[in-house]
Amino acid sequence: MTNRFLAAVLALALPFPAFAQRAEPPVPPAADPAVAALRDAALKDDVAYDIVEGLTTEVGQRLAGTEAEARARQWAAAKLNALGFKNVRIETYRMPVWVRGEERAEITAPFPQKLTLAALGNSGATPAAGLTAEVVVFKTYSDLANAPDGSLKGKIAYVGNAMAPTQDGSSYGQAGVARFVGPAVAARKGAAAIVIRSIGTDTHRLPHTGMTSFPEGVKPIPAAALSVPDAKLIEAMAARGRPISMKLVLTPRQIGEQESGNVIAEVPGSDPDAGVVLIGGHLDSWDLATGAIDDASGVAITAAAAKRILDSGRQPRRTIRVVWFGAEEVGGYGGRDYTRRHGAERHAVAAESDFGADRVWRFQATLPDSAKAVADRLASALAPLGIVHGKGDGGDGSDIGPTIATGVAGIDLNQSGLHYFDTHHTPDDTLDRVDREELRQNVAAWTAMLAVVADAPEEIGPVQRKSH
Amino acid sequence: MTNRFLAAVLALALPFPAFAQRAEPPVPPAADPAVAALRDAALKDDVAYDIVEGLTTEVGQRLAGTEAEARARQWAAAKLNALGFKNVRIETYRMPVWVRGEERAEITAPFPQKLTLAALGNSGATPAAGLTAEVVVFKTYSDLANAPDGSLKGKIAYVGNAMAPTQDGSSYGQAGVARFVGPAVAARKGAAAIVIRSIGTDTHRLPHTGMTSFPEGVKPIPAAALSVPDAKLIEAMAARGRPISMKLVLTPRQIGEQESGNVIAEVPGSDPDAGVVLIGGHLDSWDLATGAIDDASGVAITAAAAKRILDSGRQPRRTIRVVWFGAEEVGGYGGRDYTRRHGAERHAVAAESDFGADRVWRFQATLPDSAKAVADRLASALAPLGIVHGKGDGGDGSDIGPTIATGVAGIDLNQSGLHYFDTHHTPDDTLDRVDREELRQNVAAWTAMLAVVADAPEEIGPVQRKSH
Repeated sequence: MTNRFLAAVLALALPFPAFAQRAEPPVPPAADPAVAALRDAALKDDVAYDIVEGLTTEVGQRLAGTEAEARARQWAAAKLNALGFKNVRIETYRMPVWVRGEERAEITAPFPQKLTLAALGNSGATPAAGLTAEVVVFKTYSDLANAPDGSLKGKIAYVGNAMAPTQDGSSYGQAGVARFVGPAVAARKGAAAIVIRSIGTDTHRLPHTGMTSFPEGVKPIPAAALSVPDAKLIEAMAARGRPISMKLVLTPRQIGEQESGNVIAEVPGSDPDAGVVLIGGHLDSWDLATGAIDDASGVAITAAAAKRILDSGRQPRRTIRVVWFGAEEVGGYGGRDYTRRHGAERHAVAAESDFGADRVWRFQATLPDSAKAVADRLASALAPLGIVHGKGDGGDGSDIGPTIATGVAGIDLNQSGLHYFDTHHTPDDTLDRVDREELRQNVAAWTAMLAVVADAPEEIGPVQRKSH
Repeated sequence: MTNRFLAAVLALALPFPAFAQRAEPPVPPAADPAVAALRDAALKDDVAYDIVEGLTTEVGQRLAGTEAEARARQWAAAKLNALGFKNVRIETYRMPVWVRGEERAEITAPFPQKLTLAALGNSGATPAAGLTAEVVVFKTYSDLANAPDGSLKGKIAYVGNAMAPTQDGSSYGQAGVARFVGPAVAARKGAAAIVIRSIGTDTHRLPHTGMTSFPEGVKPIPAAALSVPDAKLIEAMAARGRPISMKLVLTPRQIGEQESGNVIAEVPGSDPDAGVVLIGGHLDSWDLATGAIDDASGVAITAAAAKRILDSGRQPRRTIRVVWFGAEEVGGYGGRDYTRRHGAERHAVAAESDFGADRVWRFQATLPDSAKAVADRLASALAPLGIVHGKGDGGDGSDIGPTIATGVAGIDLNQSGLHYFDTHHTPDDTLDRVDREELRQNVAAWTAMLAVVADAPEEIGPVQRKSH
């Protein structure tokens, strides 16, 4: 037993009054009854589910830059108008588009077996008839990154880099490096192709797609993600010590610049000088499923919460601007276009919902000193929903990222990530994954946040962040 | 409140001593320490997992009548020999084979969306370019069966018939009628094709395949199962009240008579007149996955238990014959071939394991009057594993069915079916689905059963069943 552990055990063994000797925390602000009433009414919300159900049923997958995403924009504008929002509009831009082709793979030796996989966004293509090559198995990204240059010449790299669930989602960034840059690293070492274990936390026979990128000068190689059971199968074969060969057919292609766009709606505020409260999620989805959690839920939660303020009978001080961003999945084009057009307007706070529909467990805020009290009021308003006040920065997310980078204050309402990566970017991202009660808890949290922030009497000006 | 319910409530309200007034049950036989020792040692079994891991890794899918099933037979014979079994042999037969082709579907109106589906065994084919037709939505099999003759002419029938999980698996038979005979019924009513909601209990984007059959004179129509989320999507579209059309591409084909076979191994008994104890599972699998639970687990559990008797240092009275049957999934050809060859031999008991690897929760036995005491000893031996003694018939299963039908006694060790249909016949039937501890509980139950039955001093002769 270490001394530190011993001390901890002894501390626990102290009688209860010992705890009372700790300094008492500051008295939290009393919950505002009007905010509490709006929050609690939102626990019966049906608007968010209706949006998710409608978008997944009547549009379905909506890959950025495709006609499906264009249909989604029309659907969105009609829905936001029907909900009573003001200034509903579509703002388009152009962006390069990659589309999936055929995708098949099989182990040809030593044990012939078919595999389930999905090409990664920006993947290169194999010949139409496929390519067959020896597989070099790397259990981790580090093993791949440390392989000698040229050692993969003509071979197919396999990278495991298994991901474990984390509530804050931090394991995605760590494991995801195998997807984000693994293909470029393998290409530079001469690999003919790369297959990775899906960056996900499930054990279903469904691959997780997602973007990868190849820097200037690195020719894209075929790159795909195997479902987790298929990845485990390859590792089990590798454990037998015999050479493994794989036949791979991937025929995606780049189809050039296409139109994408953002859909914008507002709850106009009474004080144009107080700055916009920017909220939203992304309208586009990956192409393998209907994008119920990624991110129909995010656009639904934020719009449903804004509608509760709209319908409250009391105009907020600040304009609430709901943006359903386009082309998030494939590179954040919508977020950048928004900032290009609107970055010069005064924004008080930006917040996005792009982490599914599990319950919100934490909020984090980065606010200017003039508005520190806003965070305390948020803590009081959100605590009854079981939400803790995290001490990290607020303002995370790829769509609000360019706006946050201009110095705008940010608030995060963090959903639990313990199951998000079971489904995200897979064919399983369908309506079934959305739990109505958890969705309602999200709407209640966002409603409370908007009620506090949009009406805050404090000035909410720019903030300075270390990381921007 | 009914009188019966009232009586039940009053009974529960009686003070505890009231229970003591019930007749005491008969004193159960004491557990045999040798049986208990074998059973408890089996809770550390690794042989069964090794078989499942090996068969799924080194062979994978093994559709009946294909070269993959032939490879599985070679693998099986080598494994059973390596485990030390006697009289290991392969017995082949020929059977008609259906193989999967392309399979794609999409809703073309009112909301274009791609669907995930798998053809049912014996499905007919669409033209290579597919067929597009209006969808007629039936929420239940009963709705389909009651549709007027000719009312489906040229249309695609959709049948829901949702299945709920049951521990004894009985909901499979009830919901499964949509798959077993739904296609033939739709064909007779003029349908161009049929898609059903998968007969399964999960909500993943993975269809459940399985056989259907068309009687003589009914031309097979294209028939497929949609994943449950895809089925729900169609029902959600149907709820909008607008006509739905679907494009369907299914190109399976019948490839004629091919070779399949059973693999047999024995633990020879000391008394040839006491009858064989026939146990086993099926070696073939569906083609969508590696068949870890259906039925690598069954062949593994029964062989691992038999090996424990083989290695116990004491020859059993009765020969234990382990049969890894071929071609179960596609029509029980292996079970019938076994009975054709061996039906005249004396069998004492038959038992099969073909319900996955969840824990055994119940056993049921049908034994002749001369051997009723065997069931009591089984109850004592199995109770410590948390297994109840069910009062129904024993001897269930399609592989032992033809043998049971000749009047052989039967014993069932029933695994829980609460999750079996989450995975069965889907691409998800992989090694991940097998829990090592639950697999060990199965091996322990089968070991205890074999120890009791193979050595039972009673005569175990034919039985008469109502249903056979």
